[in-house]
Amino acid sequence: MQLIDGKEIATTIQNELAQEVATMLADGARPPHLAAILVGNDGGSVTYVNAKVKACERIGYRSTLVRLEDTITQDELIEQVNRLNNDPEIDGFIVQLPLPKHINEHAIIEAIAPAKDVDGFHPVNVGRMALNLPCYLPATPYGIMQLIQRCGIDTAGKHAVVIGRSHIVGSPMSILLARNTKGANCTVTLCHSRTQNLEAHTRTADIVVVALGKPKFLKAHMIKEGAVVIDVGTTRVDAPGTKLGFKLHGDVDFDEVAPKTNWITPVPGGVGPMTITGLLQNTMLAAKKAKY
Amino acid sequence: MQLIDGKEIATTIQNELAQEVATMLADGARPPHLAAILVGNDGGSVTYVNAKVKACERIGYRSTLVRLEDTITQDELIEQVNRLNNDPEIDGFIVQLPLPKHINEHAIIEAIAPAKDVDGFHPVNVGRMALNLPCYLPATPYGIMQLIQRCGIDTAGKHAVVIGRSHIVGSPMSILLARNTKGANCTVTLCHSRTQNLEAHTRTADIVVVALGKPKFLKAHMIKEGAVVIDVGTTRVDAPGTKLGFKLHGDVDFDEVAPKTNWITPVPGGVGPMTITGLLQNTMLAAKKAKY
Repeated sequence: MQLIDGKEIATTIQNELAQEVATMLADGARPPHLAAILVGNDGGSVTYVNAKVKACERIGYRSTLVRLEDTITQDELIEQVNRLNNDPEIDGFIVQLPLPKHINEHAIIEAIAPAKDVDGFHPVNVGRMALNLPCYLPATPYGIMQLIQRCGIDTAGKHAVVIGRSHIVGSPMSILLARNTKGANCTVTLCHSRTQNLEAHTRTADIVVVALGKPKFLKAHMIKEGAVVIDVGTTRVDAPGTKLGFKLHGDVDFDEVAPKTNWITPVPGGVGPMTITGLLQNTMLAAKKAKY
Repeated sequence: MQLIDGKEIATTIQNELAQEVATMLADGARPPHLAAILVGNDGGSVTYVNAKVKACERIGYRSTLVRLEDTITQDELIEQVNRLNNDPEIDGFIVQLPLPKHINEHAIIEAIAPAKDVDGFHPVNVGRMALNLPCYLPATPYGIMQLIQRCGIDTAGKHAVVIGRSHIVGSPMSILLARNTKGANCTVTLCHSRTQNLEAHTRTADIVVVALGKPKFLKAHMIKEGAVVIDVGTTRVDAPGTKLGFKLHGDVDFDEVAPKTNWITPVPGGVGPMTITGLLQNTMLAAKKAKY
């Protein structure tokens, strides 16, 4: 069993990005600039956005945080989106989700210029991903694809089973793994809440990606010897007495599954650190106008 | 074994559309109006476009065929596309593929207004399909989903195996069958040229969709008793002495596979007639502004 060290791979990639920033500055260019719109004061959202801003600072990006009251109307929010769409000093931006209930999230996402949609949530980016055209990949699936590639895991012709069909992880993972590209070319089975006999699928899989949000869901008897297991779960479970007061639990019963695998991601320190990394990479691509 | 009679189902749906046209006319509205751009004189393309025009006439739609020389430049073609985008008398239009090699097909498709892209090939429509948002579905997958539904075939929780990952059939079929919607909710395995041990997947499938373009590829030993088999293959094979001079061959070895199935589409008369039907339905949706 080998550990897929997401923390180390994320650090490596972020150091590479910092090098690129240094080169840009030496060439007289400005650094990449990411903006984030945060509506309201949801604790989780504030934490996530702050982590993104800090990551930008660490590698030398500029960042701008636009904080808005949760009483903002949908039209006003679209105005703010348009302001960022039209600001040549902003390379890419995100609108932190979830949004207040009176705002249609899809309408906001579709208002973002695809060329600045570094979250990769706009239908144009999702469609281009499915069509294997230049686009921004959603951060978490992008990060997972890089974990697999940087560990030198062979994917071509392998059977990958993805559990969970969310629009931000499971569904795009199933699309990415099946594409006719280097580091992909898997036969892909997408499983979800309606799947009958899940184990029949996972037990034959060379690669299992679990993105359900159910702690310790994947057990050792559900996988075959030597499988690659990617754990996307990050459920907060109360842990009184710890520094944070909670622990992150993955969807994989790590202790019993790990010995049977060839490669496995830990939680924390596996997929998690790759999500911000994917966002930072998309922002660099936007600054370089590499996709649009 | 029951035959999935695509010809009959297509006729039923087209009659329903003709009824809707009659209602629109009675209400004083104009009928739906489909336009097609045909570049050059490729024999197959002329035949396909003419079939679409005739289908429109049969059910009372207006149709406009825009024929252009194959010496047209990409910019001139985009101008033509914009003209149709801005023409309020045209509800939807298609650009018949393939285009001459000096023209970038993706650039043309992305120039079409998503709201008029009744082929469902624009990244916005592909992305919205993946995100389960209102969109035009690509005609062939749309037609297949309707065959399955109109035959009352149960899909929820079933295992569907799709063979072939083309952007116009296999890949969107894998997305549609997995969505959390009525008539879908399958566990979906997408197989393709790189798949190892294809039979291990097809032999456990409740539903097999074959879209490869290899005549008689699927054999009886590759499926389980009682499977549903959808044959998307339409390879022209020379047949001297017949009226057309060729016969259409499916990807399924019908004679040996059919007795083992619960439901199966013939070729011709299965999926084929549903493709134009899907286009006509999208055009009706465009005329009614049901999706955009």
